[in-house]
Amino acid sequence: MQPLTGFGVAKVLDSRHPNFKKGDLIWGTTGWEEYGVITELEGLFKIQHTDVPLSYYTGILGMPGLSAYVGFYEVCSPKKGEYVFISAASGAVGQLVGQFAKLMGCYVVGSAGSKEKVDLLKRKFGFDDAFNYKEETDLDAALKRYFPEGIDIYFENVGGKMLDAVLLNMKDHGRISVCGLVSQYNLDQPEGVQNLMCLIYKRIRMKGFAVSDYYNIYPKFLDVMLPYIREGKIMYVEDIAEGLESGPAALAGLYSGHNVGKQVVLIARE
Amino acid sequence: MQPLTGFGVAKVLDSRHPNFKKGDLIWGTTGWEEYGVITELEGLFKIQHTDVPLSYYTGILGMPGLSAYVGFYEVCSPKKGEYVFISAASGAVGQLVGQFAKLMGCYVVGSAGSKEKVDLLKRKFGFDDAFNYKEETDLDAALKRYFPEGIDIYFENVGGKMLDAVLLNMKDHGRISVCGLVSQYNLDQPEGVQNLMCLIYKRIRMKGFAVSDYYNIYPKFLDVMLPYIREGKIMYVEDIAEGLESGPAALAGLYSGHNVGKQVVLIARE
Repeated sequence: MQPLTGFGVAKVLDSRHPNFKKGDLIWGTTGWEEYGVITELEGLFKIQHTDVPLSYYTGILGMPGLSAYVGFYEVCSPKKGEYVFISAASGAVGQLVGQFAKLMGCYVVGSAGSKEKVDLLKRKFGFDDAFNYKEETDLDAALKRYFPEGIDIYFENVGGKMLDAVLLNMKDHGRISVCGLVSQYNLDQPEGVQNLMCLIYKRIRMKGFAVSDYYNIYPKFLDVMLPYIREGKIMYVEDIAEGLESGPAALAGLYSGHNVGKQVVLIARE
Repeated sequence: MQPLTGFGVAKVLDSRHPNFKKGDLIWGTTGWEEYGVITELEGLFKIQHTDVPLSYYTGILGMPGLSAYVGFYEVCSPKKGEYVFISAASGAVGQLVGQFAKLMGCYVVGSAGSKEKVDLLKRKFGFDDAFNYKEETDLDAALKRYFPEGIDIYFENVGGKMLDAVLLNMKDHGRISVCGLVSQYNLDQPEGVQNLMCLIYKRIRMKGFAVSDYYNIYPKFLDVMLPYIREGKIMYVEDIAEGLESGPAALAGLYSGHNVGKQVVLIARE
């Protein structure tokens, strides 16, 4: 039996690889276990900066952070003053995309699934506005209310009905960065998206991406993010579950929308 | 009552605009009528080269030709040796895209709706292969047969079930140029596309475009196309209906797949 794997932070106890030595801290794909042997080095990074919480390397300084950075800056080609919509906006990726967009001078609205998350988006992350999609009977009407002039950039985390409604509300030459389709993962049959005609009428570019294609820009990403974090220009919220035994419930929570912010499972303190 | 409009070729009988004078030939948006007054000059081009059939300016040298050029070269970023699939491939745009792809050294397969069209693709336009989608009960299986290694570039003219099947067969980093969704135009409710997850897994870029955004490259396009036509490097098939009275049936034929090649209605000879 193999343990589950995920993005984690670990300390090197022993190593036969020249790039990693005893005592090094790393982030990358690790097992859901207290001790483990890592043989796959692709996507394994040494942690050089420890003046920020180590858990940040599972999120804002790890894969989700790099996803937000790549998905927004590289995929969406954002410009100052543009209208940005983010679904699942309180998640580890969404919360960062919204803050990147604000730092760039965009108008940013996010959707989330609870009042608590909507409050977080507006009060903590500085979104211009936010709404609870579960309280909206007509997503198209909701988007028209928040974006009377339309959406330039959609950062897609959920898919399905939300994507269909967003397509109707995109502006000409809009860009859609497809990071996740979390509303579809648990369905036997995905929901059909019907409004793809809008891709032509509005000359929309839609692109899926995988963060692993962009590991080469990780140093550049750190150069941007570390000062933002140290200067408090970017906020970050984690939802920390204590102990390996809390892992399964935390994982299930991701698919039912129970977690707020980045879900972290703390397996062992030093 | 206003006449229908479409892309046509006409001779200037009188003009108060300095760029157009009596006797000039033009192509652009014209009425379905023998004589008309044109007041909208955007997208109206003077015909400078008359050593090719004038009808070509409704097709290979007009909007469909420019659509093929833009949709393939500008939107798809093609590379030599890539695998290209084109739906509605015998149409005015598809037949050109296939030939562009062959000239670039790609492997090209097209789909069409009759044996006659499939033969045309293979014999006249030089496609590597072609199939009649109406004879395939399983489009996914058909595409796997023609593209065992997957598709790099999909030139989308039809949408719906074909797009869903293509998404399953795209290669990583594939590109989809969305030119038309002709299978959807006559439906009360568009078919839902279910396989958009592939956009993420395969890091696909999908982009709709409108040829009117690219009118500025028309001179460059002519520089490429005229030699191709004169040297016989590009073949072109028209389906010419004689007389304005044949127009409605010809238009209806576009939606039922009866025409082969570019549908032209010849309203008046000089």
